[in-house]
Amino acid sequence: MTKQERAARTRDALIKSAAREFDEHGYALAKLSTISSGAGVSPGALHFHFENKAAIAAAVEGEASTALRRTCRIVYRHRSNALQNLADTSHALARLLREDVVARAGFRLSCSHGCRTDLNLRQEWQSCVLQRLAEAADEGLLATGIGSQQDLARTIVAATVGLEALCRDNPEWLSPGTVTGLWRTLLPMLTDPGTLAGLEPAGSPAATPRARVPVG
Amino acid sequence: MTKQERAARTRDALIKSAAREFDEHGYALAKLSTISSGAGVSPGALHFHFENKAAIAAAVEGEASTALRRTCRIVYRHRSNALQNLADTSHALARLLREDVVARAGFRLSCSHGCRTDLNLRQEWQSCVLQRLAEAADEGLLATGIGSQQDLARTIVAATVGLEALCRDNPEWLSPGTVTGLWRTLLPMLTDPGTLAGLEPAGSPAATPRARVPVG
Repeated sequence: MTKQERAARTRDALIKSAAREFDEHGYALAKLSTISSGAGVSPGALHFHFENKAAIAAAVEGEASTALRRTCRIVYRHRSNALQNLADTSHALARLLREDVVARAGFRLSCSHGCRTDLNLRQEWQSCVLQRLAEAADEGLLATGIGSQQDLARTIVAATVGLEALCRDNPEWLSPGTVTGLWRTLLPMLTDPGTLAGLEPAGSPAATPRARVPVG
Repeated sequence: MTKQERAARTRDALIKSAAREFDEHGYALAKLSTISSGAGVSPGALHFHFENKAAIAAAVEGEASTALRRTCRIVYRHRSNALQNLADTSHALARLLREDVVARAGFRLSCSHGCRTDLNLRQEWQSCVLQRLAEAADEGLLATGIGSQQDLARTIVAATVGLEALCRDNPEWLSPGTVTGLWRTLLPMLTDPGTLAGLEPAGSPAATPRARVPVG
């Protein structure tokens, strides 16, 4: 392993350890000494990579943003229509937030007040919802007589942001079952029964592959 | 003013000042010196009333819980039916959270992790939603063919909790207009068009009196 490779590996370990510490105690109470020992390095090694707590938090946010945006792009590639893509994207993001501590901690840091960078990942999600609804309107998927697109977008944003907030107390709120239940409730208010029949509230298998259950 | 009255007044001023400090900086970063000076008293006077930061946070939570529960009871007294009462209650609570810093800070303290008391006001709201939906079912208000009551309750809880979370960045999310938009979206998915025609997404005037606009 070259010197550069070792440095990159240490930096990654510090980011992951910091994410665990921020996830558990929040930014204000996170301790640099716990972060360095969690990464198996000295406080000096931490300071070689990051000037202070704000710098390491910015790095966690940056990694989270990369992972969350990449997830959205991958799901978009398997896009069948805008409404299914919206449900699929929420499932994929929920899974990432459940399983990846860096994505979860970075997302929360970027939304917390007194925040240190210009990132606001909740704001990006809101733009994504608005964009998909506009596409759904273009694709003729939205039922006639439904409320204003702005009301619908705000309801979807509020409900999904609410799942993430509630999940901090109880991870069940971001489980596949709860996210599916949300779309079972919301999709019928967005589209007519004909379109609804072709939509999968649990996410389309192509866009959100699940572990295969062996048969027999 | 008797000695007791003065003490009660100082205690109230400290709770309000603490709420402002928690609201602005969060529990971890809140400073006792700012709380005492904000109440116009010495640090010694603060410590006469409250042993430490946890004790004053618990007092803020207690006051918030009293105000939020009282609001729910008052709205319940003007109850026409369970669905209207659910919308009315959310409007009244949103107004309290917007206008009363003690209710807002106490609500947030009770939901934040690492929390110090047994109160969880978000959990109480969740119970209230479940209760109203069960009543709506008893009253024959829920449309046939809608999703499971559990899915509906979770969607309403997630959307309303989401509004409160989003409001931390932008108060517009708890404005009467946004809360009304939420119910314009959610009510049609809960009930049939006949019942819907009698419901007021902006809240019924009896239960959520608004400032009168002078005419002419």
